[in-house]
Amino acid sequence: MTPAHERSLRPISENSLIRLLHDRYQVKHRWIRRGIGDDAAVVHPRGAHEYWLITSDMLLENIDFCRESIEPASLGYKALAVNLSDLAAMGARPRFYTVSLALPSEISQGWILRFYKGMSELGRSYGAYLIGGDLSGSKSGISVSITALGESLKRRVVYRTGGRAGDWLYVTGTLGKSAAGLKLVERGLSRPQSRVQKAAIWAHQRPEPRCKAGLWLAQSGLIHCMMDLSDGLSTDLARLCAASKVGAEVYASWLPVFAESAAWGCDPVQMALHGGEDFELLFAVPESKAELLEKSYPSTLPAITRIGRLTGERGIVRLRGRGKRVIRLKDQGYDHFRLRKDFGAPDKA
Amino acid sequence: MTPAHERSLRPISENSLIRLLHDRYQVKHRWIRRGIGDDAAVVHPRGAHEYWLITSDMLLENIDFCRESIEPASLGYKALAVNLSDLAAMGARPRFYTVSLALPSEISQGWILRFYKGMSELGRSYGAYLIGGDLSGSKSGISVSITALGESLKRRVVYRTGGRAGDWLYVTGTLGKSAAGLKLVERGLSRPQSRVQKAAIWAHQRPEPRCKAGLWLAQSGLIHCMMDLSDGLSTDLARLCAASKVGAEVYASWLPVFAESAAWGCDPVQMALHGGEDFELLFAVPESKAELLEKSYPSTLPAITRIGRLTGERGIVRLRGRGKRVIRLKDQGYDHFRLRKDFGAPDKA
Repeated sequence: MTPAHERSLRPISENSLIRLLHDRYQVKHRWIRRGIGDDAAVVHPRGAHEYWLITSDMLLENIDFCRESIEPASLGYKALAVNLSDLAAMGARPRFYTVSLALPSEISQGWILRFYKGMSELGRSYGAYLIGGDLSGSKSGISVSITALGESLKRRVVYRTGGRAGDWLYVTGTLGKSAAGLKLVERGLSRPQSRVQKAAIWAHQRPEPRCKAGLWLAQSGLIHCMMDLSDGLSTDLARLCAASKVGAEVYASWLPVFAESAAWGCDPVQMALHGGEDFELLFAVPESKAELLEKSYPSTLPAITRIGRLTGERGIVRLRGRGKRVIRLKDQGYDHFRLRKDFGAPDKA
Repeated sequence: MTPAHERSLRPISENSLIRLLHDRYQVKHRWIRRGIGDDAAVVHPRGAHEYWLITSDMLLENIDFCRESIEPASLGYKALAVNLSDLAAMGARPRFYTVSLALPSEISQGWILRFYKGMSELGRSYGAYLIGGDLSGSKSGISVSITALGESLKRRVVYRTGGRAGDWLYVTGTLGKSAAGLKLVERGLSRPQSRVQKAAIWAHQRPEPRCKAGLWLAQSGLIHCMMDLSDGLSTDLARLCAASKVGAEVYASWLPVFAESAAWGCDPVQMALHGGEDFELLFAVPESKAELLEKSYPSTLPAITRIGRLTGERGIVRLRGRGKRVIRLKDQGYDHFRLRKDFGAPDKA
């Protein structure tokens, strides 16, 4: 019989592998405040005024993007954005990043320079600077791997782990917009036919990391936990619940969906629930502080919306629909070890 | 006419692209002591007792390794070793690392766990801990991208840039051993026929980062500049010369070659000059301090060998052979944008 750990990768999920690595390699060290398993690691260099946060994320050709449908500048922008989003999710300020780039021989120097230009444009606008990396030829597509370093403010960082039953759940911005944009890109729509379509494609290809909102929320002292939505609400909320050892209930009608995508055959609610790469923030606020938070949250930052609450039903996420209909929400977002699914058809379940 | 920057990648070298990125994206920032272009970036977090060093390096299937000829534990070990070697080259102590791993679906969970085991074995032995990373499926081979963070001691780090004409050049260990091991691996020699062959394959697949030697050298205050030999002496020495704005002269007969590789058809001198992945340290010592260095260098550390000197002939590296024969040494090591060359045949030039 094949030993359990010799099984091929397919039956295991990204989550369970990360959990396994966490259990094996998590170390107690006086400089490590948080290691494997959160949006970023948190370390405290001896003597440093602040905590430093470190996160790594990669984008791979034919997994995360198709070369033909994204401009190199947008690819550079997005590759950095997904990393800065992880820093935002803990309330850190971006500082530095390194880039490891593997490139097939047919990629031109102009392509490479546009890639770095798009990336550094985003970096500069958030105060993050390129400090190094690696360059290599590749026999199998483009791969971009970035590590971003950020700094806390007053050593205040927010983890995934602080949520408690009864907390209200909030998100920033709109959910499902990026997935709706991806749908257009997949249909080969190189020139969007409207402002709305353009905005959707933009959300997919040039997501805006919520650094300022994340920093404000962390500094406010009003939230219990936070993470960014990279793989879809159903996947990421389950992760938040697992980390905080709680359950959750989401109200479908409260979701800030991207309703306009119905015009091109998407189901906005399904996309809000399961579409990945929104890079919005998901956070939990104790009931007693929700009003204060809503009142004091600056109107100049991306809007926040209450979408549900944390419950005591550990590990269970429910979706409350119209009337009294409640269904258990299965984790159907993006698992990097599964193939991306189709979000076009309305959910018949 | 195609604008110069639209040329395909082939005509440009890794070096010139890094120079270009350095010129465009090098920033002056009070926290950045050294950015793009050295073995690692050096930053100084506000208030921290020490400098922190950051380096990123990747290994790609069918570029840097073949899946069939390396054990997953050795691959993990090597992927981290090449990063720790960069920290060693600046005299830093390894502390943390993140790993971004892209894996085709046929890779088993057992493979993954052995990979992490090999990696963390090396990490632990140098005090470096896994703090995070990224996991993804891949449609095009295994890719490993690591970022390692290290800490200086007494804020003493050594750059590539401090070399001066007249300095003696030294290396640690043996040169060309890894390339000789690669030769055996390429011939499909899964079971080495002797201890010597085993040592060569080991040097290729499980290189030992010279962290202790690098730290000692940096602390000694006796050396002007240092780097690690990842792409072959001819390539890396040219980089050291460019960074220090000097030239160099190497004495062929002084090179600590891996003479045993002649037994399997290699040219030990050619391999010492152009074979990559030795991960030994190359450093320059002012003439007045060479004797003191040789006397005080601990015998418990990997041996050091004087191999030549830096000269005032900026950008020119010469090789002095037997008698009065001097040839100009062309950069023939490993360029990640070129294909790996064959080092088997003796050089007829």
